[in-house]
Amino acid sequence: MTPILLTPGPLTTRPETRAAMSRDWGSRDEGFIALTAEMRRRLLSVANGAGSHVAVPLQGSGTFIVEATIGTLVGRADKLLVLVNGAYGERIAAIARRLRLPHEILTWEEWQPVDAARVEQTLASQPAITHVAMIHCETTTGLLNPLEEVAAVVARHGKKLLLDAMSSFGALPIDLARTPVTAVMASSNKCLEGTPGLGYALIEQSVLAAAKGNSPSLSLDLHDQWRGLEGNGQWRFTPPVQVVAALVEALRLLEAEGGPEARLARYRRNCRILVEGMGRLGFRLFLDPAHQAPIIASFHYPTDRPFSFEGFYQALAARGFVIYPGKLSKAESFRIGCIGAVEPADFHRLLAAVGDVMKEIGRAA
Amino acid sequence: MTPILLTPGPLTTRPETRAAMSRDWGSRDEGFIALTAEMRRRLLSVANGAGSHVAVPLQGSGTFIVEATIGTLVGRADKLLVLVNGAYGERIAAIARRLRLPHEILTWEEWQPVDAARVEQTLASQPAITHVAMIHCETTTGLLNPLEEVAAVVARHGKKLLLDAMSSFGALPIDLARTPVTAVMASSNKCLEGTPGLGYALIEQSVLAAAKGNSPSLSLDLHDQWRGLEGNGQWRFTPPVQVVAALVEALRLLEAEGGPEARLARYRRNCRILVEGMGRLGFRLFLDPAHQAPIIASFHYPTDRPFSFEGFYQALAARGFVIYPGKLSKAESFRIGCIGAVEPADFHRLLAAVGDVMKEIGRAA
Repeated sequence: MTPILLTPGPLTTRPETRAAMSRDWGSRDEGFIALTAEMRRRLLSVANGAGSHVAVPLQGSGTFIVEATIGTLVGRADKLLVLVNGAYGERIAAIARRLRLPHEILTWEEWQPVDAARVEQTLASQPAITHVAMIHCETTTGLLNPLEEVAAVVARHGKKLLLDAMSSFGALPIDLARTPVTAVMASSNKCLEGTPGLGYALIEQSVLAAAKGNSPSLSLDLHDQWRGLEGNGQWRFTPPVQVVAALVEALRLLEAEGGPEARLARYRRNCRILVEGMGRLGFRLFLDPAHQAPIIASFHYPTDRPFSFEGFYQALAARGFVIYPGKLSKAESFRIGCIGAVEPADFHRLLAAVGDVMKEIGRAA
Repeated sequence: MTPILLTPGPLTTRPETRAAMSRDWGSRDEGFIALTAEMRRRLLSVANGAGSHVAVPLQGSGTFIVEATIGTLVGRADKLLVLVNGAYGERIAAIARRLRLPHEILTWEEWQPVDAARVEQTLASQPAITHVAMIHCETTTGLLNPLEEVAAVVARHGKKLLLDAMSSFGALPIDLARTPVTAVMASSNKCLEGTPGLGYALIEQSVLAAAKGNSPSLSLDLHDQWRGLEGNGQWRFTPPVQVVAALVEALRLLEAEGGPEARLARYRRNCRILVEGMGRLGFRLFLDPAHQAPIIASFHYPTDRPFSFEGFYQALAARGFVIYPGKLSKAESFRIGCIGAVEPADFHRLLAAVGDVMKEIGRAA
């Protein structure tokens, strides 16, 4: 039995999406060129970016597209401000260090959203900063950062916002026609519910056009990747054809479901059932509910009884549910995702399984 | 109808391989950890590298693993000699330029194999060189470079050979216990007949262990990638789980077929039928047959009658065969691949289709 994946990804996909991987494609054939064009058009349309941005897909995981976007857009003479309140913000800082890019880091505690006023002070006092990188939904905790406020501050100072929307794109609202964001980065296998193997960035066309020669990497150069796609519709280097086909099918299913708004509503129902049910079973949510995105929820280990995450994980896996370890630096926690091709009935079944497992653990203690 | 792909990849795969992509996998779950371990073990075993080398997989296309290997193994104080007799040798030179690595380039014409004596002279006269990069089978033409001779010269001078075996690995013999090669790079979707989305390098363990901190990229750091896999069996960043599952199935099918030797024998039969048949139809092979690998064959455009590659390609595609454009710098050519889940019967049908198409073209002229 294939388990239900309640993780930040790879996650549970729909059978139609996986079925789209069942054929071979010539990557330079016109059928696949049309598939790539449809994928790029649909990705732009998810964030209403058709008038201003271009969609540039890249082989690899989410980290590849984040490194590629930063390496392509932030030049040696620029300076990047990285906003950090979790492991994925830290990862952007690690990328900036590795690429030896001039950068500055602002940090918050893992339970605190980024504070736009503090970003504003920093931009006012450090005019050398040219770009600001922020995580939309910090998968470390499930925290939602205030996109609109931060985007407004960054735009007011004439800087460029690079938004890591890895775990939010396709569900939480991002409207590029209304909100000033230079680049949005995400991947195939989170809220779009495709299979993993592909990232993409939606980048302001004029900014990308000016980024020729910036990238210190051949493989990760998004300017060259874009020029190649615009030139003949083909990828520069072999694409994961089946993953592309699955993503196109997943994007069609997103539209059929009613778009990001309907998807968000489903994830909200999943998350409400999860958090309320876990609360009844004695599990405390790590975040203030006001900052919790309906993407993934972090729970403290129980303190009123013996608890081993390994045992809990295995007992749930044996019942067909794969959950996720925590990634907090200062608290013992585990995570349960609300995204993917999962719905309220799955969470009711999960809660019943958690209840059983906790009874077993209680008896064993 | 899914066409038969006669290209350098993505190519025709077996239904069992694609069926392995039909389920979801949690990338940190023990089932997937076991799958990754089996993949790494089988990759090593294809080239008899278990005693000396480690297999490090990487998300992305073949170019990603080549850039990652060079960026991880060649340090700032090293110097890379790049042997170029086609577009993929040129690509390694482009990677060295982009990474700003000290390097030297030796070039040959596209129809000439690399000449070990000239490599030896260069190594003797330039002691600063530390690494040598060569393409095993140049996919530009289908030319086979003399691995044994070059490896012996490089080893005699105490240098490290980095072998791009993209289109040869799994079919042409590479025996790491016998032939001194520091790193072999290849991808999932060529002679292994997996689906695209994954590259891998087999790297001498002691050399990789000493390469900590070399890589200028976070995503493409193979030392960190290896340490992560050795640590807990998990990938540092989300792997393309379905592509991994397909590659493991493809590796099992390779073993069932009789290993690389049996696969090479099948490709040789394919190639012989193709080259002889095309010759009878008036198509001249670009290479001297002595240098032709049974991987992909380049043919000159016919000169005795009007010929448009576009028309030829479309007419064959309509009959269910996808061929490939040429990539030569100085001659008009097209390519037909011999690799993938294809066999002599497919080539007999292809030749009948080519015969029909050429008659049509003759009538139209």
